[in-house]
Amino acid sequence: MTTAKGFAASGVRAGIRRAAPDLALVRSTSPAVGAAMFTINRMQAAPVVVSRAALEVAEPQAVVINAGVANAATGAQGEADARATASRAAELLELAPAQVLVLSTGVIGVPLPLEKVLGGIESAVSSLSPEGGPEAAAAILTTDSRPKQAALSGEGFSVGGMAKGAGMIHPCLATMLAVVTTDYPLEPGEAIGFLRPAVERSFNRISVDGECSTNDAVVLLANGAGDVERDREADAAFAEALQQVCADLSAQIVADGEGATILLEIDVAGAASDGEATAIARRIATSPLVKTAAFGRDPNWGRVLAAAGSAPWNGGFAHLEPDRLALTLNGTQVFSAGSPVGASPSLDGPVCRIELELGLGSGHASYLAADLSYDYIRVNAEYST
Amino acid sequence: MTTAKGFAASGVRAGIRRAAPDLALVRSTSPAVGAAMFTINRMQAAPVVVSRAALEVAEPQAVVINAGVANAATGAQGEADARATASRAAELLELAPAQVLVLSTGVIGVPLPLEKVLGGIESAVSSLSPEGGPEAAAAILTTDSRPKQAALSGEGFSVGGMAKGAGMIHPCLATMLAVVTTDYPLEPGEAIGFLRPAVERSFNRISVDGECSTNDAVVLLANGAGDVERDREADAAFAEALQQVCADLSAQIVADGEGATILLEIDVAGAASDGEATAIARRIATSPLVKTAAFGRDPNWGRVLAAAGSAPWNGGFAHLEPDRLALTLNGTQVFSAGSPVGASPSLDGPVCRIELELGLGSGHASYLAADLSYDYIRVNAEYST
Repeated sequence: MTTAKGFAASGVRAGIRRAAPDLALVRSTSPAVGAAMFTINRMQAAPVVVSRAALEVAEPQAVVINAGVANAATGAQGEADARATASRAAELLELAPAQVLVLSTGVIGVPLPLEKVLGGIESAVSSLSPEGGPEAAAAILTTDSRPKQAALSGEGFSVGGMAKGAGMIHPCLATMLAVVTTDYPLEPGEAIGFLRPAVERSFNRISVDGECSTNDAVVLLANGAGDVERDREADAAFAEALQQVCADLSAQIVADGEGATILLEIDVAGAASDGEATAIARRIATSPLVKTAAFGRDPNWGRVLAAAGSAPWNGGFAHLEPDRLALTLNGTQVFSAGSPVGASPSLDGPVCRIELELGLGSGHASYLAADLSYDYIRVNAEYST
Repeated sequence: MTTAKGFAASGVRAGIRRAAPDLALVRSTSPAVGAAMFTINRMQAAPVVVSRAALEVAEPQAVVINAGVANAATGAQGEADARATASRAAELLELAPAQVLVLSTGVIGVPLPLEKVLGGIESAVSSLSPEGGPEAAAAILTTDSRPKQAALSGEGFSVGGMAKGAGMIHPCLATMLAVVTTDYPLEPGEAIGFLRPAVERSFNRISVDGECSTNDAVVLLANGAGDVERDREADAAFAEALQQVCADLSAQIVADGEGATILLEIDVAGAASDGEATAIARRIATSPLVKTAAFGRDPNWGRVLAAAGSAPWNGGFAHLEPDRLALTLNGTQVFSAGSPVGASPSLDGPVCRIELELGLGSGHASYLAADLSYDYIRVNAEYST
């Protein structure tokens, strides 16, 4: 988070729901531009509504994130609380309220404990540090078992980021919370053009449980504090670094998925279109039967085909012809030209790679997913109360 | 299954995959008409392909069902095996092969052990009995914990049926296997007109795990052996009885869902259209977070709203305005006009009733679903190998 020049961060205990750091602050110390992508869930959390409105009138300079309470399904009071949060941080940071984005994660339907949040902000502002990235990354976690950070340095610039998320993870434009900072110089309005394609190929291609959150957000802040001359080549290098940091954070989210014991790498090729490849990859990534088989280390590949055959697409199912299919699990082909091969793949090891070739066209998509284990049930049957 | 007059059934051990009855036979003893609805999964099992073709050339008189092996993803050999199954049964029953429907359920991608199936058919034909319904209902089960049967008698006619299904349960036109018999008199070609609306409001409104099988089928056989004069009123009484038998079997499937500990009754009203109400009800019914909360008896109603806000519809999400929503759990309102009510519902008891009022129009839909428990994981991590 603080790898790029000119950023400071902190993570503190506000006491929102637990005895652990639960409030993070990130700010650029020189004027920055930025962009954000939010969940498209129709139940938008109050901080999403407030931050989306802020982005329409100002370039973001700082982000406040609280864990423990999502401030979603909280009505007009929730929006007033989110605005009060941004205002207090803006006041202490000498910014306009619209220059501060607010993000929340935690339980839905519970009012934000505003006094605790405001107290936490005071503490977070006074703790801001150019080495505060790890503290911020730790303060945004909920059911995560570990912080998620990534950073890359290019020629004269750096990109760093943090993310949280272990459940309610499934692409809806953006999934989970992530903040990415860079000292690469971008003009106002330019950031979204870099952020969108990076998110499309990273955060939008992961699934832990097929659930689309009310609070998902990915924020990019760029302050130009690096030492790089912009040209087409530098822009491409920055776009690539941004995509890699997003992909790294995405993979960390899936690997730390609630109850995850094995990583599913799903690759669908030869589809009629990229859209249909994505629909099929997503259907496999969200299939409880594929995910429980993976948890049981059972090469029950018929479940992959059953899922692939029922991928929602254009009001029906994505196109697929059994006679043209080839399916490979961890390098061993199990199904070819409509019939079983008779081979038995191994699912030992930390990754289950599922490669499905449709033989219909050039459509392609990749997806990362977690398996479905006893611990997913335990975490989610016990969370909240 | 044998409540209606003029039907015989049997269930025998063919030794396909286990030491339990695994092959069922149902036939009408007088000329019958019939109809069937099948899965719309693009990976159609061989028996679905063969039975669908048979229905195009003849009215069905008998149904052979095997458990243990789904005969799906088995290529040309699988279709030859399904045809051989129908042919052998037809020969022994003195019918044409196209008058015999074949259905299979079990593991996908494993060849049908044809010799065992053919041996089982001989035994099943010689065991046919007008009291054989319960034996047939027992022989079609896989991960089910109990047989599913239902019967109703109207004035001068009866409707009886059996079903199987505990996992891979989610509407795709028809879900799971079910056979319904009646002695009500129908003309050739008429049966589908009665079957389709009954299935639409029963089997197509249940979900255990959101998985659409390769083998789902619902079959209706009607032989007119009852004692009823047809008129508009009698037809309505028959349609109602058929719908009730289908609804009864559907509810039994959900109640016996893999690992199910509580029944979710989901009712969505006030949607912009029936289609959007159905999309929202289905999304709630398939949400792992709603289902794990129900398993944990945790009234974490925010998860219901988060699911409702992300119901796929027309390439986006179904329409919903948080400020108009009202949500009631087991009779206790928890959310109204966009804000939490502050009440705490009880989830003790065998049913969790979820009522969501959208306040947008007159669209309405109901759904039945199972919760998601440790036992669902256990059953599906261990099934197959």
